[in-house]
Amino acid sequence: MHDILGGSNPTARAVTGVVANAALSGQLPFAKPNGANLPVSNGVPSNSNNNGILNNNNVPLLVGLGGTTSNILHNNGNNLLNGLPVANGGQLPSGSSLQMLMFGTMTVMDNELTEGHELGSGLLGKAQGFYVASAVDGTSQTMAFTAMFESGGYKDSISFFGVHRTAASESHLGVMGGTGKYVNARGYAVVKTYTGGSGNSQQPHQFTDGLETVMECTVYLSY
Amino acid sequence: MHDILGGSNPTARAVTGVVANAALSGQLPFAKPNGANLPVSNGVPSNSNNNGILNNNNVPLLVGLGGTTSNILHNNGNNLLNGLPVANGGQLPSGSSLQMLMFGTMTVMDNELTEGHELGSGLLGKAQGFYVASAVDGTSQTMAFTAMFESGGYKDSISFFGVHRTAASESHLGVMGGTGKYVNARGYAVVKTYTGGSGNSQQPHQFTDGLETVMECTVYLSY
Repeated sequence: MHDILGGSNPTARAVTGVVANAALSGQLPFAKPNGANLPVSNGVPSNSNNNGILNNNNVPLLVGLGGTTSNILHNNGNNLLNGLPVANGGQLPSGSSLQMLMFGTMTVMDNELTEGHELGSGLLGKAQGFYVASAVDGTSQTMAFTAMFESGGYKDSISFFGVHRTAASESHLGVMGGTGKYVNARGYAVVKTYTGGSGNSQQPHQFTDGLETVMECTVYLSY
Repeated sequence: MHDILGGSNPTARAVTGVVANAALSGQLPFAKPNGANLPVSNGVPSNSNNNGILNNNNVPLLVGLGGTTSNILHNNGNNLLNGLPVANGGQLPSGSSLQMLMFGTMTVMDNELTEGHELGSGLLGKAQGFYVASAVDGTSQTMAFTAMFESGGYKDSISFFGVHRTAASESHLGVMGGTGKYVNARGYAVVKTYTGGSGNSQQPHQFTDGLETVMECTVYLSY
């Protein structure tokens, strides 16, 4: 699946936590109360170098299926949160770290499922659901989502629940259930993530101006 | 189940996203930071025509199990968000639409399960859980909830997870598990929604002043 934060066609949106806060207010966390993570209409991106498509107002930094620090560095090469340096912790609450700030952030996703790693490769369907940053140190996401397959009009689906450990080479998610041809399915998925997106050369083909994470899922079922 | 947003006896409440934001602030999204979707105690509803029971401050517009646009039009015949016209997009961020604004909104529910479509028909139990607007275009909700049956003191329950596609005639949800007589249950539910609520004549009997969506569930189990 292709998890795209920010950009002109995002497929995932942080809805709770510090990141949603920062994305709306354009300030450091705790400076203002929480808000939905929407593009800011009247904000002038001050740190964007690509005409404002991907900027520090509409990219939820720190989150994403690919992990934490990599995404920050990914965005502009510095530990910036909405344009302000935070690595020194000068403006962070005492005892906080970037990873701890993430803890609890919930992100809703409507990600494309494709056959290959490329966003443009054969569309299989959608993965809809959400993930929650569930490790205090920011290294895992509790995921709950349904993979729905386009073939047959989205009647066939498999739902997963489990913890994706972003720092590990792979994680396993349990199958919660299924519909259509996968009704009563049991099993698990092995998931691996590859961080792509703007300015990154790990993935050869990028079709988005957002911050893309590719999650490769290999599913083992009995039904 | 009966999903009732707003009114004097709501059974569902938006807790994240723009809608919760707008419902508290009584303004367009982005005007104020986010907050819980609580009835506004000191706000005078300026657009209510039914003595303030159902008004634009306490009805979470845009959301609901019945879909998006229909609910908006349903409320007062216009594309209004807290009393301000939004259809022209004049104050919305460029590229946004009402459906895109909804993406990510999480709504918690404590819905009554009844035998028939009428809210007053035989009470079977409750459906408690939540749903998240999980399509970028606003046409689906990822649902996670437990149907608990009153008979026997709520010991019997079935939990469901899946994507409800509001634009489709029916959707299938997978069974996650069960308790009591449904322990180890497997299977799926076929769900269909019927939008009722104030001012609508689709449903013959309305017992609420809120925005009601009836979800009909037909469950197929093996256990």
